[in-house]
Amino acid sequence: MSGRLITLEGGEGAGKSTVLAALRARLAAHGIEVVVTREPGGTPFGEAARALVLDPARGDLCAESELLLMFAARAQHVHEVIRPALAAGRWVLSDRYTDASYAYQGGGRGQPFARIAELETWAAPVRADLTLLLDLPIADGLARAGARGQADRIEREATDFFERVRETYRARAATEPERFRVIDSSHPVEVVREAACAAIDAYVARVREAR
Amino acid sequence: MSGRLITLEGGEGAGKSTVLAALRARLAAHGIEVVVTREPGGTPFGEAARALVLDPARGDLCAESELLLMFAARAQHVHEVIRPALAAGRWVLSDRYTDASYAYQGGGRGQPFARIAELETWAAPVRADLTLLLDLPIADGLARAGARGQADRIEREATDFFERVRETYRARAATEPERFRVIDSSHPVEVVREAACAAIDAYVARVREAR
Repeated sequence: MSGRLITLEGGEGAGKSTVLAALRARLAAHGIEVVVTREPGGTPFGEAARALVLDPARGDLCAESELLLMFAARAQHVHEVIRPALAAGRWVLSDRYTDASYAYQGGGRGQPFARIAELETWAAPVRADLTLLLDLPIADGLARAGARGQADRIEREATDFFERVRETYRARAATEPERFRVIDSSHPVEVVREAACAAIDAYVARVREAR
Repeated sequence: MSGRLITLEGGEGAGKSTVLAALRARLAAHGIEVVVTREPGGTPFGEAARALVLDPARGDLCAESELLLMFAARAQHVHEVIRPALAAGRWVLSDRYTDASYAYQGGGRGQPFARIAELETWAAPVRADLTLLLDLPIADGLARAGARGQADRIEREATDFFERVRETYRARAATEPERFRVIDSSHPVEVVREAACAAIDAYVARVREAR
């Protein structure tokens, strides 16, 4: 079976960490060992870039720099982790990927989608095969994220920023229904986890049928 | 008098630091106080990005990431330093600017010039008014740079990398003779410094005549 790239997307407090762990276990139960990674990050360079971009002291970072830094980290992530794993036939499960740039740097910060699409063609040409979008109302997500303590630079944004992020994610999911599975994350975490695992079960079955 | 952006470009060991100090003094003698800055760097974010990109431990950084990181630093440099200074009517003297990306990430690393030009249009739309290119044979430059001790990640490249960097700089200078002044830096440092100062004298005279 050839490699697949599965990405997990969603706003603040959507429950990505819990779901990520459940998905890894579920894929293992299917006999599929995955490389679990994240963005921004995933490589030593990417983690250093992540620390830079999330540092609350970087309050004055302009939108263009933020976008370029995200893609600098992503290009290295593709080069060093994602592409080699897929080439070796392994599955990759990434906590956020390019959709996050459309949502945060595009919808949130107003960087043109065409600009992001152009960067994607040469800096991150590997496309996700399946994307689970954990979707929930902004107020619910921020309440959950707030309970975790200190907010990073992006978590400090105003509510309308997160509304634009959410709307961009939902619009992308509507445009690519084949790739996206939208999971209502306003339910209790066990329900969300089960919905995500059911989506993975269906995807694995489809991949195995297609062989 | 409105602001001007003067950039200083050149390979390893071309004598940029010495020339930079002389140019600042010469502009001051003309009654022009300049903001002296550098790339990569020039802002707290840019200096952190500089440390990342020059770190010899980053031996595996892919060419796309390097290019994107350089432009992330540059966008912030334009946003935070260059544009406000020019808007306030001040002159800016930068140790390297966009030509360096054409030379190092383009000529050196093989990133397409069209890709760099595209990034330039939205991430660094401010163009240099005058560019002094300190040009000298690669062997001379590396011998001088080597005498300074520990090489950074880019200084560790092979000679043909630096040949491509030099050729790209020279080709850009040939294409934009109005903007570029090429200074033969194989001469003793006092001669190079005086040639650079003479170029500045001529430029200041031209700007004052044009008022």
